[in-house]
Amino acid sequence: MRAVLDCIPCIIRQGLNTARLATDDPKVQREILDRIMQELIGTPLTGTPGDHSNVAYRVVREVTGVDDPYYELKRKYNRIALELYPRLKELVVSSEDPLHTAVKLAAAGNVIDLGIGVQFDVEREVEEVLRTPFSVDHFPGFVEELERAERLIYIGDNAGEIVFDKVLIEEIRKEADCEVTFVVRGGPCINDALREDAEEVGMEEVARVIDTGSDGIGIPWADVSEEFKEEFLKADVRIAKGQGNFETLSERSDPIYFILKAKCEAVARELGVGYGEVVFKRHPAAPPRSSLSPPS
Amino acid sequence: MRAVLDCIPCIIRQGLNTARLATDDPKVQREILDRIMQELIGTPLTGTPGDHSNVAYRVVREVTGVDDPYYELKRKYNRIALELYPRLKELVVSSEDPLHTAVKLAAAGNVIDLGIGVQFDVEREVEEVLRTPFSVDHFPGFVEELERAERLIYIGDNAGEIVFDKVLIEEIRKEADCEVTFVVRGGPCINDALREDAEEVGMEEVARVIDTGSDGIGIPWADVSEEFKEEFLKADVRIAKGQGNFETLSERSDPIYFILKAKCEAVARELGVGYGEVVFKRHPAAPPRSSLSPPS
Repeated sequence: MRAVLDCIPCIIRQGLNTARLATDDPKVQREILDRIMQELIGTPLTGTPGDHSNVAYRVVREVTGVDDPYYELKRKYNRIALELYPRLKELVVSSEDPLHTAVKLAAAGNVIDLGIGVQFDVEREVEEVLRTPFSVDHFPGFVEELERAERLIYIGDNAGEIVFDKVLIEEIRKEADCEVTFVVRGGPCINDALREDAEEVGMEEVARVIDTGSDGIGIPWADVSEEFKEEFLKADVRIAKGQGNFETLSERSDPIYFILKAKCEAVARELGVGYGEVVFKRHPAAPPRSSLSPPS
Repeated sequence: MRAVLDCIPCIIRQGLNTARLATDDPKVQREILDRIMQELIGTPLTGTPGDHSNVAYRVVREVTGVDDPYYELKRKYNRIALELYPRLKELVVSSEDPLHTAVKLAAAGNVIDLGIGVQFDVEREVEEVLRTPFSVDHFPGFVEELERAERLIYIGDNAGEIVFDKVLIEEIRKEADCEVTFVVRGGPCINDALREDAEEVGMEEVARVIDTGSDGIGIPWADVSEEFKEEFLKADVRIAKGQGNFETLSERSDPIYFILKAKCEAVARELGVGYGEVVFKRHPAAPPRSSLSPPS
């Protein structure tokens, strides 16, 4: 999707949130805001929201020299999520449809997004998401595609959240005899999971871990590695978590199951749902079931 | 209170909301955002949030030539609130403490704030505010001061909301034999009530109506009329509604009863309450009851 005018104040707010993690000096924080505004003025919004948000994070890096302002927070949220892991497994095991519950938990994990600056309470949100039906739920089609899958790619989002992703991948592997590749960012990018986060939560036990080759938000196609592109293109089932991945992948024709909470009006509009709603959406939509071609 | 760094993205968002009312042309909307950013860069945040927000509204006016972008919305919200008026009176009359209920309704009216861009539903919010106790409630002291009051000044906020203010003023006049002056802005200022709004809701039936002499947000002391200042200073009870009035009056030593919902983190912090909470707060706080001096 293309960035919209609403992205401009949002990018500046993201810059402020990040500046406050990188420095305690209000003068430096202000310098960061001024430089972000300077860069935004006159810049046509031709890219995705993620492309334009990258400016905010780059400016924080340039001004403060801090390469990974969310480093400590990522440790903290991995720890919180790992403490929750036994409870998540219990919820899955005790449910009527473990795979569907695991998809819902993966969505619940997406509320853990520090970059966007909204207050949250992990446990309460988990229960809330489990209780609330998805606004769009393409689960039946997913189960069908999964049965025939040979290669599944799963593009992660935030630290902490990846513990929830691991729970879903464990259920996927029970249902399908397919190779699973989990994707992290190639370098510090907001609070997004990197290789060290994947290691911290033991993701290698359930999936091959690769990175995008880029420290840009989501999947900036012009900037990601050939290895990533190859894995992405040859996968027969693709899952992508969170807004950054949706913003940067929503215009591709390759079918992707997006799991995310619409954390801003622009993304909600693009998804065709209400602000704050949570979806499990195949995009582009699947053809009618009867016309699905057999696996090649 | 002084503006904080969080005000910067917020001012730009206010500019965007207002630009969209003043013009349908996205290029002009973008020009407005760029000009607001240009003005903000390097400007020290020495004023109140309201002082700095004025920039956004001035730029919209300069670029589009539209003097009062909220004109139609103000008509609409006066109409909605007037339709609600019989129900508000009913709620007051049927309650155990009509004056306290009227104060709560005046607070409920403050959720009608189009400038801040949050979705709302008037009736639901009214019931919600009535149900929820104020986070700070200086009602007992207010009743005491009201008994001895000779001149009360009531500084309004938004169109629509002033219908709720009228309901409170009607209750005040039942309790206290005092002159009541109701204050509107001196010129178009977001969706704030002007003289025509006061006329539209029949405010003159219950109060003398004056204006601030300024089209600035809240009470920009350097810019308001002598008539306003005189009325303000000689009043023995002062009520001020909403964030704009709080932001611009919170550093004055004259005691004021603020009725508002904390619609941003910075104002919540200044009030010492949580984001989204609603207060009826005397500021500065009253001296202990026993030491109150008799009326002069």
